[in-house]
Amino acid sequence: MEWMKKTGINVVRIGEFAWSKLEPEEGRIDVSFLVDIIKRLHENGIETVLCTPTPTPPIWFSHGHPERMHVDQEGQVMSHGSRQHACTNNAYFREKAAQITEELAKKAGHLPGLIAWQLDNEFKCHIAECMCSTCKGLWHEWLEDRYGTIDRLNEEWGTHIWSEYYQSFEQVPQPAATPFLHHSSLQTMYRLFSTEKIAEFADEQAAIIRRHSDLPITHNSTLMFSVDNERLFQHLDFASFDTYAPQGKLESYVLNCDIWRNIKKNTPYWVMETSTSYAASLESYAHPHANGYLQAEAVAAYALGGQGFCYWLWRQQRTGSEQPHSAVISAWGEPSIGYENVLQVEEARKKIEPLMLATKPVQAHVAMTYSDKARMFHQTEPHNGIRYKDMMTDLYNVLLTEGLHRDVIFEGAELDGYKLLFTPLLPHVSEDYLSKAKAFVESGGIWIVGPMTGGRTGEHTIHTSCALGEVEKWTGVKTLFTFPMDEQTTTGEAFGETAPLGLWSAVFDADAAVGTIKSGVATGKAFLSETAIGKGKVVMLGSMPMGDDGNKLLKRMIRHYAEEAGVTVKTDASPGTIVAPRMGDDGKEVWIVVNMDGKGGTVTIPSKGSVTVEPHGYSIHQVTKEEVHS
Amino acid sequence: MEWMKKTGINVVRIGEFAWSKLEPEEGRIDVSFLVDIIKRLHENGIETVLCTPTPTPPIWFSHGHPERMHVDQEGQVMSHGSRQHACTNNAYFREKAAQITEELAKKAGHLPGLIAWQLDNEFKCHIAECMCSTCKGLWHEWLEDRYGTIDRLNEEWGTHIWSEYYQSFEQVPQPAATPFLHHSSLQTMYRLFSTEKIAEFADEQAAIIRRHSDLPITHNSTLMFSVDNERLFQHLDFASFDTYAPQGKLESYVLNCDIWRNIKKNTPYWVMETSTSYAASLESYAHPHANGYLQAEAVAAYALGGQGFCYWLWRQQRTGSEQPHSAVISAWGEPSIGYENVLQVEEARKKIEPLMLATKPVQAHVAMTYSDKARMFHQTEPHNGIRYKDMMTDLYNVLLTEGLHRDVIFEGAELDGYKLLFTPLLPHVSEDYLSKAKAFVESGGIWIVGPMTGGRTGEHTIHTSCALGEVEKWTGVKTLFTFPMDEQTTTGEAFGETAPLGLWSAVFDADAAVGTIKSGVATGKAFLSETAIGKGKVVMLGSMPMGDDGNKLLKRMIRHYAEEAGVTVKTDASPGTIVAPRMGDDGKEVWIVVNMDGKGGTVTIPSKGSVTVEPHGYSIHQVTKEEVHS
Amino acid sequence: MEWMKKTGINVVRIGEFAWSKLEPEEGRIDVSFLVDIIKRLHENGIETVLCTPTPTPPIWFSHGHPERMHVDQEGQVMSHGSRQHACTNNAYFREKAAQITEELAKKAGHLPGLIAWQLDNEFKCHIAECMCSTCKGLWHEWLEDRYGTIDRLNEEWGTHIWSEYYQSFEQVPQPAATPFLHHSSLQTMYRLFSTEKIAEFADEQAAIIRRHSDLPITHNSTLMFSVDNERLFQHLDFASFDTYAPQGKLESYVLNCDIWRNIKKNTPYWVMETSTSYAASLESYAHPHANGYLQAEAVAAYALGGQGFCYWLWRQQRTGSEQPHSAVISAWGEPSIGYENVLQVEEARKKIEPLMLATKPVQAHVAMTYSDKARMFHQTEPHNGIRYKDMMTDLYNVLLTEGLHRDVIFEGAELDGYKLLFTPLLPHVSEDYLSKAKAFVESGGIWIVGPMTGGRTGEHTIHTSCALGEVEKWTGVKTLFTFPMDEQTTTGEAFGETAPLGLWSAVFDADAAVGTIKSGVATGKAFLSETAIGKGKVVMLGSMPMGDDGNKLLKRMIRHYAEEAGVTVKTDASPGTIVAPRMGDDGKEVWIVVNMDGKGGTVTIPSKGSVTVEPHGYSIHQVTKEEVHS
Repeated sequence: MEWMKKTGINVVRIGEFAWSKLEPEEGRIDVSFLVDIIKRLHENGIETVLCTPTPTPPIWFSHGHPERMHVDQEGQVMSHGSRQHACTNNAYFREKAAQITEELAKKAGHLPGLIAWQLDNEFKCHIAECMCSTCKGLWHEWLEDRYGTIDRLNEEWGTHIWSEYYQSFEQVPQPAATPFLHHSSLQTMYRLFSTEKIAEFADEQAAIIRRHSDLPITHNSTLMFSVDNERLFQHLDFASFDTYAPQGKLESYVLNCDIWRNIKKNTPYWVMETSTSYAASLESYAHPHANGYLQAEAVAAYALGGQGFCYWLWRQQRTGSEQPHSAVISAWGEPSIGYENVLQVEEARKKIEPLMLATKPVQAHVAMTYSDKARMFHQTEPHNGIRYKDMMTDLYNVLLTEGLHRDVIFEGAELDGYKLLFTPLLPHVSEDYLSKAKAFVESGGIWIVGPMTGGRTGEHTIHTSCALGEVEKWTGVKTLFTFPMDEQTTTGEAFGETAPLGLWSAVFDADAAVGTIKSGVATGKAFLSETAIGKGKVVMLGSMPMGDDGNKLLKRMIRHYAEEAGVTVKTDASPGTIVAPRMGDDGKEVWIVVNMDGKGGTVTIPSKGSVTVEPHGYSIHQVTKEEVHS
Repeated sequence: MEWMKKTGINVVRIGEFAWSKLEPEEGRIDVSFLVDIIKRLHENGIETVLCTPTPTPPIWFSHGHPERMHVDQEGQVMSHGSRQHACTNNAYFREKAAQITEELAKKAGHLPGLIAWQLDNEFKCHIAECMCSTCKGLWHEWLEDRYGTIDRLNEEWGTHIWSEYYQSFEQVPQPAATPFLHHSSLQTMYRLFSTEKIAEFADEQAAIIRRHSDLPITHNSTLMFSVDNERLFQHLDFASFDTYAPQGKLESYVLNCDIWRNIKKNTPYWVMETSTSYAASLESYAHPHANGYLQAEAVAAYALGGQGFCYWLWRQQRTGSEQPHSAVISAWGEPSIGYENVLQVEEARKKIEPLMLATKPVQAHVAMTYSDKARMFHQTEPHNGIRYKDMMTDLYNVLLTEGLHRDVIFEGAELDGYKLLFTPLLPHVSEDYLSKAKAFVESGGIWIVGPMTGGRTGEHTIHTSCALGEVEKWTGVKTLFTFPMDEQTTTGEAFGETAPLGLWSAVFDADAAVGTIKSGVATGKAFLSETAIGKGKVVMLGSMPMGDDGNKLLKRMIRHYAEEAGVTVKTDASPGTIVAPRMGDDGKEVWIVVNMDGKGGTVTIPSKGSVTVEPHGYSIHQVTKEEVHS
Repeated sequence: MEWMKKTGINVVRIGEFAWSKLEPEEGRIDVSFLVDIIKRLHENGIETVLCTPTPTPPIWFSHGHPERMHVDQEGQVMSHGSRQHACTNNAYFREKAAQITEELAKKAGHLPGLIAWQLDNEFKCHIAECMCSTCKGLWHEWLEDRYGTIDRLNEEWGTHIWSEYYQSFEQVPQPAATPFLHHSSLQTMYRLFSTEKIAEFADEQAAIIRRHSDLPITHNSTLMFSVDNERLFQHLDFASFDTYAPQGKLESYVLNCDIWRNIKKNTPYWVMETSTSYAASLESYAHPHANGYLQAEAVAAYALGGQGFCYWLWRQQRTGSEQPHSAVISAWGEPSIGYENVLQVEEARKKIEPLMLATKPVQAHVAMTYSDKARMFHQTEPHNGIRYKDMMTDLYNVLLTEGLHRDVIFEGAELDGYKLLFTPLLPHVSEDYLSKAKAFVESGGIWIVGPMTGGRTGEHTIHTSCALGEVEKWTGVKTLFTFPMDEQTTTGEAFGETAPLGLWSAVFDADAAVGTIKSGVATGKAFLSETAIGKGKVVMLGSMPMGDDGNKLLKRMIRHYAEEAGVTVKTDASPGTIVAPRMGDDGKEVWIVVNMDGKGGTVTIPSKGSVTVEPHGYSIHQVTKEEVHS
């Protein structure tokens, strides 16, 4: 603990895999071990985030009980020996998880030094939907809740296709092995069911804790797991995430900051886990971060709205399957390869902490909608291999490299304060989302819709009224065709840029064309069109500009509409360098400039002109509202 | 239906997946739904091909009955939710399939407007051999029928290898999981068993229909599925096929026309399914065809002997797993991206129809043998990855690009009228085939044998008398060695061309060498040899000329023997353009020239000289017999 | 047999798959078939190696008994139809294997002409660890034997990680399906258990034979299979191996000779199987060897300490799954493509036999340790894809191309006679190994340790005292960090060579640096360090020099320490040519020079100067001790 203090560790997170320690035999629960640690940490000035130990039920739970275990999509029943091996919907699991959680909440919930709770650990990080027979029964109940009658399900899904028609809910299969693909609705609904169930488990755990403890509750999630983060965090108190983004993908790291800041608006997020140097398991490893990168990560995390920045892990594991993973200190108790970087972070934290406490991130003018539900649609219907998270990160990077201060928001987020809204890759535009977007546009916002947005119903079927359903009806922009654009033969032109067009596309009537298709089977039609509605504008982007030229076109398009929308919270930071604008209660604005790519960079600071930032360095600049927002 | 007429749709195919509509509850059959449609179509001047709905047994068949389901080669039992999930050998499946088929035949078999039947849909398109216990029992019966005694099986297969010796038929396993490869005979026989069983199911269905309807019966097959098309069509009335060959592989499309024309000699084939623009499912898509390509496909299909040219599908599916697939009209009821092309096809059809009805394809002089049995041998014994269909298509392309009018024929086809016969990749040359080939050669034909032809017995073992068995005994061409030629180190020379040689090869005594091995371990021996027999000649091709140089050598060889054999039905069409010669009862010959590759082309028309054809265009030319066959 | 004599075949190996012939019905054993063959062979002057037929239990063993079959790591139960389908730990298998072996030993054990026994055939060539329930029970017994109490297991493995803690041995799972990786200790111990059990089966078989026969016993193994060869051969009498190393990987072939020579010190090894031309099965094939290569292989095998050089197989199989494999004569009884090479070998054998009988390989000065246990550690912990055998072969090739005469030895081998010991990729350095190495160093040897040596305990966990455990404590060379070196950003310099550094690395204090890290996160630290201990020296190599430059650095390092250690048994053979030094009882030394790569080569022969060797040729040269060892 002395050492922890030396390295600036003022909070630790414990307990997430400790179930067998806390309940070594079925029913014999004793959490004093964790209670003692929390007390000792507190005596040493270190605070604790306590986790429920539910990802690893002990052997007395697993042994001889295949019916309690997670079943994967190939029908394999998981065995003991790793983690997340239990079906979290199993009734006995829920009972035992409730017991251990309640006991922890009772005994530790009021301890001084305890500052927060984390539920479980990285829900669904190794697994997706469970195919066990418990889940089968719950699936049927869930369907009945959703559809009421089997006729309604048959109608909504259109089960006439391939004679899939069901006579009762209990006949609806889980998406197990079939000769060819399962029905889209069945696949997508099973994913929704699964994400709803894990969120329900989180709610259940949180409710138990709240009976005994007033402390805020979080979960360490990511955008990679088989969860619906918006739903998962609905009843939690603050956001936290784990990130092991590779050093070269800085946009992936910054995207995390920009989305987790917004999931619990006005509540700072935590980086709950990141490696001091590199991630690794027995089977693979990432490369060590360059010296200095950890500090850049930490400063960026704080500047963009973070409150906690925690390492996983403190001491390298001497056993198990993650022995090679980097840590603050080695398995033999000495400084690790990342140790000096940890000290560097601590130094930076001390320097910037007063400023961070005195300011908050400035409201962005630009928002991009991100949706785990959309991710599930794309999993069901990947066309030629769409990976939602990756493609969204690339599109996000257009905003980032344009120097726009931006929010990444979930579907349910309010749109107040934004001037430009970007909604790519959202197959189903819900009634609620559309109604917010309508209000946004009518009151003066510019909404960029697409690519691949609006073409599916909430049941994952195709609209029968028109290609893009309610979006199309509202905007009046006629979609002529939808089809997979062939980027080898198709080009489009807009704003003076020409680029190949690809991806599953909507082609519009040429009347409102801002971007026109120049070659391929739809030559002369529009891939980009504008419609003024109310005081604002809807921009339909029907196809994806591809490659380097596509990226140029996208940047040009974003710049154009950002200007038109009057977006002023932006900078000209060189690529690899980011700027986080913050503001104090006194209305004074500061810019935290961080070089993330290790190459150093420049940015124009009003009244100072162009300033440089060292590789992996950061600098802080005062600006006035007048200077930047005019 | 109005719209159908507008687009030239004069026949529709229905019913292939309608089982749950026709028999929503077990035993409650009512086909009036389909009967009504057929009547209404007829009233609108549209004819119907009616399908039996057997690829998709309803949920009351599947639910709770794993023993009725298809079991794949990893032992996975299929679940409901896709198609082809039932084991077609299951007794209850056969019973229910017979019932529904009989009812359909009774109620619809004499309806005016009904013109033909299609059995099921794309047998075995998603599945291969079934491993269920029903199949196990039938497998043992099939073996007993084939071999009589287990001793005979042991002897024919040579089960002394690896102590595989069986004491009774019921001990013979299905080819399920083993530490290393299964015995070749067991593998190949299981494939034969499986293809025989699906053909038997087709026969059973056809017999039921024939009790109530005189209309011709077909099935929509392809060369890709796990069936033996020659056997499958044995008791059917006309040929039809589905094709989604990519636009760039025109030889694949034309091969289809050339083989399906011949499977039911003198009966025109149908293109039963092709996409208006592109094929797609939730998981992948092909690129849209260029405008004009569909017309080229249609004209080629008709000119090469087709009668029907049908799209799949009329209206884009709004649900299920093929929502993105192209159609004539969209899910929301409007023209699709391929719509204009459909109109173009209709225009062309009207123009060429009188000529098509007045003429028939000219008898080809060149034939190439294609065999699904050979495909099964190569599946069992792929050496370093032989894919029969692909390699056969490449070899076929040699004939095509040489401008030879050609037939692709199955093993059982008669050889009358041919001058040059090409038999590559046929491991087992059956007694029947050899006897026809002997007569063909003796009466003046030239037979090119190989590569990879003749080296295996009908039981998929190696001959013990000589390398190529009866072929070798008859020709007297001594095969010295068989081994995998190393194309990196081996070259051969023939007809002035030198090329790398590869593939599992037979090397001949140099005495009758036409092509000599110039490097590698068999230098100085022959890879190509000639033997005059009767009035004709046998050409043994022991190895595969590889790469561009190999292609040149193959073209040179084919040209040489086509000339020597007196092949006159040929043209000099530029690559990408094809010529279909047809003749009327009046003996007048016409050439239909079609540009398939969209680049345009040329061909010399006797008495006209070189004429050009527009990209994806076609033209029709009268020629006289004297002009072309001299 | 006449033909065998003609081709120089003077010993044959039979029986390994003959079980169904010997015991066609359960309990009816009659081995007279094999006895007769052995007698007839003997009458023809051909000797026999007799195999136990245990890799292929007959159908009466397999049929209807899934519980007797091997279960693979995906839980698939093997079916009859290939080989190695039985679980060799099944009690009934052991009983029946003992019976047939005893009967063979009784009836054939004293036959004239029989010269040796081979147990089974290529243990575990197609399979790895078995997951059946018999093995589960034995696994629990094995663990109890090893650990005594479950508490000890929990402590040694560190099962506190992820709540894996076990309450009893019977709860410990086999490494079946889990959401993420199994614990390293569990994985590695299960591999050790499996290799121990197959060795135990070999011991059991050998003991039965020895009750009836005094002949030496071997097994035909390789370095590729899931066995621990050191343990497997512990109670066997002589070494033999099978090799199908591709012609281009001569170092892989020579490595085999250098390791199998040492597994039974002073007892010549046999090449029990090699192809006359190429290896093949139904599914794949290798390329035919160039003419001459087989002779080079044979001469090298004999010169490096071999006694037998046998082909697999005599006659090409006419059935089964290895029909395409090369043989001496074809399935139809004629010379194969490799036949001339077989005659060439026989000619060479006759020439060199007297010399071989009069001499023995000279004691090498350089040894490299190879360990199947290490292989198992790397299987459990492959980092980014380490393949132990391949990487060891590359490192071995450094010694080979440096012209050093070398031994490859297992962990248990004595170190007498060596001057330089190289121990790469040995994660766990056992107490016994370390104590031998200490003695070796203290008495003047140079020990090169690493890369990746010493960082794991025998339980496959990380040391908690220091990074490299006892090795580090003894040498006093401080390891600062261990982490995955990034070869893209890291270079090291030693002996004037600079190269990228990669692999899981140990970085040392710079004090004793011989090689220094020049870039990357550990710049300035050492990747290579030297410590003088006693009369010798320990060289720690912490990282892997990568690529061509890395290879240069490794060669330079080996040359440096070979010189320093006074290694004199070496030559300057050009790459692709090897030299095998041998010595007679008279102390006269001869060098057998063999060109393996088919390009010819040169080597300096003392007193003769540079001599050349023809492609695939060999030559023999007398040298004096004074000439070479000074």
